[in-house]
Amino acid sequence: MAPASWLDVSSDSRFSLANLPFGIATFPGAEKPVVATALGEYALNLAVFAANDGFSQLAELRGRVDVFDQPTLNALAALGRRFSGGVRRYLQDILKADTPYPRLLKDNRVLQEGCLARLTQVRMYLPFRIGGFSDFYGGMNHAYNAGALFRGQNGALLPNYLHLPMAYHGRTSSIFVSGTPIRRPWGQIVEDLTAAEKLPIFVPCRTMDFELELGCFVCGGNEPFDNIPIENAEDNIFGFVLLNDWSARDVQRWEYVPLGPFNGKNFATTISAWVVSADALEPFRKAGMKHPGTLLPYLQERRKDFTYDLNLEVQLVSGSTNRISTICSTNASDSLVWSFPQMLAHHTITGCPMVAGDLLGSGTVSGETTSSLGCLLEQTLNGKRPIHLEGGEERTWLEDGDEVILRAWAGNEQDGYVGFGDAAGVVLPAHKQIASTKL
Amino acid sequence: MAPASWLDVSSDSRFSLANLPFGIATFPGAEKPVVATALGEYALNLAVFAANDGFSQLAELRGRVDVFDQPTLNALAALGRRFSGGVRRYLQDILKADTPYPRLLKDNRVLQEGCLARLTQVRMYLPFRIGGFSDFYGGMNHAYNAGALFRGQNGALLPNYLHLPMAYHGRTSSIFVSGTPIRRPWGQIVEDLTAAEKLPIFVPCRTMDFELELGCFVCGGNEPFDNIPIENAEDNIFGFVLLNDWSARDVQRWEYVPLGPFNGKNFATTISAWVVSADALEPFRKAGMKHPGTLLPYLQERRKDFTYDLNLEVQLVSGSTNRISTICSTNASDSLVWSFPQMLAHHTITGCPMVAGDLLGSGTVSGETTSSLGCLLEQTLNGKRPIHLEGGEERTWLEDGDEVILRAWAGNEQDGYVGFGDAAGVVLPAHKQIASTKL
Repeated sequence: MAPASWLDVSSDSRFSLANLPFGIATFPGAEKPVVATALGEYALNLAVFAANDGFSQLAELRGRVDVFDQPTLNALAALGRRFSGGVRRYLQDILKADTPYPRLLKDNRVLQEGCLARLTQVRMYLPFRIGGFSDFYGGMNHAYNAGALFRGQNGALLPNYLHLPMAYHGRTSSIFVSGTPIRRPWGQIVEDLTAAEKLPIFVPCRTMDFELELGCFVCGGNEPFDNIPIENAEDNIFGFVLLNDWSARDVQRWEYVPLGPFNGKNFATTISAWVVSADALEPFRKAGMKHPGTLLPYLQERRKDFTYDLNLEVQLVSGSTNRISTICSTNASDSLVWSFPQMLAHHTITGCPMVAGDLLGSGTVSGETTSSLGCLLEQTLNGKRPIHLEGGEERTWLEDGDEVILRAWAGNEQDGYVGFGDAAGVVLPAHKQIASTKL
Repeated sequence: MAPASWLDVSSDSRFSLANLPFGIATFPGAEKPVVATALGEYALNLAVFAANDGFSQLAELRGRVDVFDQPTLNALAALGRRFSGGVRRYLQDILKADTPYPRLLKDNRVLQEGCLARLTQVRMYLPFRIGGFSDFYGGMNHAYNAGALFRGQNGALLPNYLHLPMAYHGRTSSIFVSGTPIRRPWGQIVEDLTAAEKLPIFVPCRTMDFELELGCFVCGGNEPFDNIPIENAEDNIFGFVLLNDWSARDVQRWEYVPLGPFNGKNFATTISAWVVSADALEPFRKAGMKHPGTLLPYLQERRKDFTYDLNLEVQLVSGSTNRISTICSTNASDSLVWSFPQMLAHHTITGCPMVAGDLLGSGTVSGETTSSLGCLLEQTLNGKRPIHLEGGEERTWLEDGDEVILRAWAGNEQDGYVGFGDAAGVVLPAHKQIASTKL
């Protein structure tokens, strides 16, 4: 059971004392984004806390408190997982009911007023300056289903899938924090890809989709031309967010051979604002799907519990009726056959350097059942089988005004929840026309 | 004919007064990298020049001289092409023999000593903090040849190639400045891809290759969910570098379907240090290869001279004999069917934002003849036909110790050359073993 806090934390809060995620926020009356943590309904301004000697009992932090007075988590993460893990444990000590350091915050009303705010009063930003974003394909059900829908049953799972965690490099300039509205993109599509002559038309995307993914922020870990061995990979994981890899399926399908997805993906990726520490998820380790292949040694995980017992949910808020439908419920352990340490080991095996703030996407998390599939492509069999929403509506693809909300949580009411912030975005209609004097 | 400079500039210098590229350098006695330009055998420290009122006659620069006292060109580029173009023209005025402002530098010996150094005395750095790197496939000969070697003649040029400038998102953390040694990567390969059972082995890359490309740095240009129309695209181009997209062909071949190249490319990309302004190349515009398809309006170039009369050359310095062989001579206009404005228009048509310092690669520049092919994959027909080097050696793929040097220049001795800095890198042997307690 997680210790109680001297702050009033509801037992159903996703931000229990067992969590303490990191994020970037502006607090009331201040303009500068700084590092914060969340507990219950409160956000704690760690820059102000640090400036008022809040970290005076944490020896490792001496001379480094400037990592909190930053507009991103890059500097904090660059110090390594052991360091940020130590900060989190110290903050648990500060915030628990029987804190050994009551003078630092619990009994300091003035400082409480200076550094605590309601979550509803703070504005959240992208947690990192993201140098690199690599989106993997770690969910085997998704890889099989999407492959079958794009290439037919025979080409569903290609031979390399069984031997390496596949990925493409994504676009960082279009990664947005939860709450940012996402505009439907225009693009080139071919209406009949089976026709002998394939003539593209230029239209707003007609088959807009979401993808339910976990995102993993790294601390860095290797110099150019060195690698991160799988057994050290955990040390280089800072924490996790939810990630919606918005997809324009019609654009993607026409463009993706041979260089992979580009415009079909690069208009937007949404991530949740609070980064849940890898340490906070540690108690929820769980065995994942058994990998069906024989792996080369550099990819062999020592542990079977390479994934997490993490509940994942997708809500669709209809743009027409405003009603909320839960259109996907799944668990990370029901889908992922590749772990983040395997992804890191593979990504760096060539010597490709990881930098603090680099982001890895898990790939779409899809379970075995229809209601556990993590994107509409799979749920609707590429638009052929509509899903049913609350209030009698149907959907094959996202409509303008629809909001997609990804949610995730581990734990329970008794021990405290370790929950993620939402990754939410509403679909705005496409521009009526594209800015150009020619069109 | 380019005006003469009061500095001693040899008529065969690639850095004539018609050029004046921008770069990031440290000067003798100073540790901080700053913005510089090059003329003949000299580098000019623009931070020192600015601090000494060197830009006092350039009204647009008032209040903005801090863009030179920076470790990257991002701030300068973010002001837009018109602005950086104005800076270049002003510097031409300062440096020409009949300068209207002789007191600012020509007649100021003290300042000359403070801000001029020999190119051999300065150390060059990556010119930009590169947020995004997108590597296109703009050379049609290369696309056809590589396609035929990877997929056979029938699948050589896929239908989408004729309708859109194809690209993949590349990795920014492994972009290195010219001169950085490149270590041969390890990777997963399958020796016989035609076998029914494909079992990968884990070895150092056996088929390491270079790719001769032009790189294009952008100024930025669009907000998220807006686009850059093709007719405005030129305004958002800052300048060009040479780009070697090092490739591990065996790794690439096994991994690239369906998500595109990943580990086969992400270990290293080399770029030249000096960024040649788009304005400096303007006089060398030339009609390119005729695009064989009918393009959607958003991709239609208004101009036929969408490429440049730019000579390109690849030298291989043998690691065994130290002898230099010119293994490729070509011209940008003999290969590229897609222009950078078309690439920018396509990349942003979904609303994907461009940020100052983003880099676009042209794709491999390959002409029609064997000696004008821009990579070994094509030159050796995937290792089947060795090329001959000076001194009697042969090569199918790069060997340890080999150095690859990309070179480029427009112009002539009479009018002055507009040349690029080299993009050079030597191949270091692979690590003997990969860091891991398991291997």
